[in-house]
Amino acid sequence: MQFFTLYGFSPSGNCNKVQFVADYLKLDYKWVETDSIAGETRNENFLNKVNPAGQVPAVVFADGKKLAQSNAIVLYLAAESDLIPADDFERAQMLSWMFWEQYSHEPYLAVRRAKLKFKGKSEQDLDPSLLENGYAALELMERHLSGRNWLVGDEMSLADICLVAYSRFADEGGFDMSKFPGVCNWIDRVMTRLGR
Amino acid sequence: MQFFTLYGFSPSGNCNKVQFVADYLKLDYKWVETDSIAGETRNENFLNKVNPAGQVPAVVFADGKKLAQSNAIVLYLAAESDLIPADDFERAQMLSWMFWEQYSHEPYLAVRRAKLKFKGKSEQDLDPSLLENGYAALELMERHLSGRNWLVGDEMSLADICLVAYSRFADEGGFDMSKFPGVCNWIDRVMTRLGR
Repeated sequence: MQFFTLYGFSPSGNCNKVQFVADYLKLDYKWVETDSIAGETRNENFLNKVNPAGQVPAVVFADGKKLAQSNAIVLYLAAESDLIPADDFERAQMLSWMFWEQYSHEPYLAVRRAKLKFKGKSEQDLDPSLLENGYAALELMERHLSGRNWLVGDEMSLADICLVAYSRFADEGGFDMSKFPGVCNWIDRVMTRLGR
Repeated sequence: MQFFTLYGFSPSGNCNKVQFVADYLKLDYKWVETDSIAGETRNENFLNKVNPAGQVPAVVFADGKKLAQSNAIVLYLAAESDLIPADDFERAQMLSWMFWEQYSHEPYLAVRRAKLKFKGKSEQDLDPSLLENGYAALELMERHLSGRNWLVGDEMSLADICLVAYSRFADEGGFDMSKFPGVCNWIDRVMTRLGR
């Protein structure tokens, strides 16, 4: 894997995913702190040179190629590593969790945390469906992780890293994690395996 | 590819994606109409036997294996077909568009359409950010498609099929598509190539 520059915002779980995968794989990259809340992903320079969608994480490779979307980036970086199951169907299940994360987990857990922690909102300001849907996501994970160490198969995969990114910050979004001991144990397991 | 049962709701773009890919690849499957708006994905039978996340599309293969999430399903069905670019980086770009679709396109275009068309809401009831963010998604596509026939590389890929699914219904979500001639031409191109 060639050298790359990773534009990311440290408190963002989506950016942490790429950082975790790149560090686990011991890849050679430079981190450029880019505060999306302060608008640093919305200026002309960023839109033209890094990511026209105005989002982090985004990667620019040494040869000038650009890639955005946390989950697409980690799939590219981790190709042919032990983070992607060799079995076709396990790989499909890993991708299913990764798409589920972006659609049914992040929009509740991450969004609620961002509003409370970074945007100065209070609990009363928030749409109650954020809490309800976030709890539904955590309950699904708790049931799935019962009797399992990892989300897919017998080894840690990108699914675990992508789901841990915001699950570990769920308490900052106002979710009571004492209800989810299986998820909490799995978070510890993933972070330990990542050496963090 | 073994026989499978595809649980889907006909008006859903997410379900259409799987239908389009399966038909294009001439796969052998049975469609089971499942009305998610009427709650047919939320009963115990569906949750236990098809998809614990309570969403369509979902696939059950002849050997009993289950797979959910539209984009994960099409990636699995289309493995080693001409719908997935052979080049590593083009494949990464295709995945980037597919994750972008679920996070930055579907939640505005599809959600606005569902509220207006299926849930009896009127324009005034809707959060104005749905329109604003949906137009931002369409503008990004219009710019990207300028001078290009397909989203990635020189051939139709899963990125085109996954993005066309709700782009073609944008007008039903109250989006003025006369502003996006490039997107409209591309929709025609994709649907023609799919034989629809």
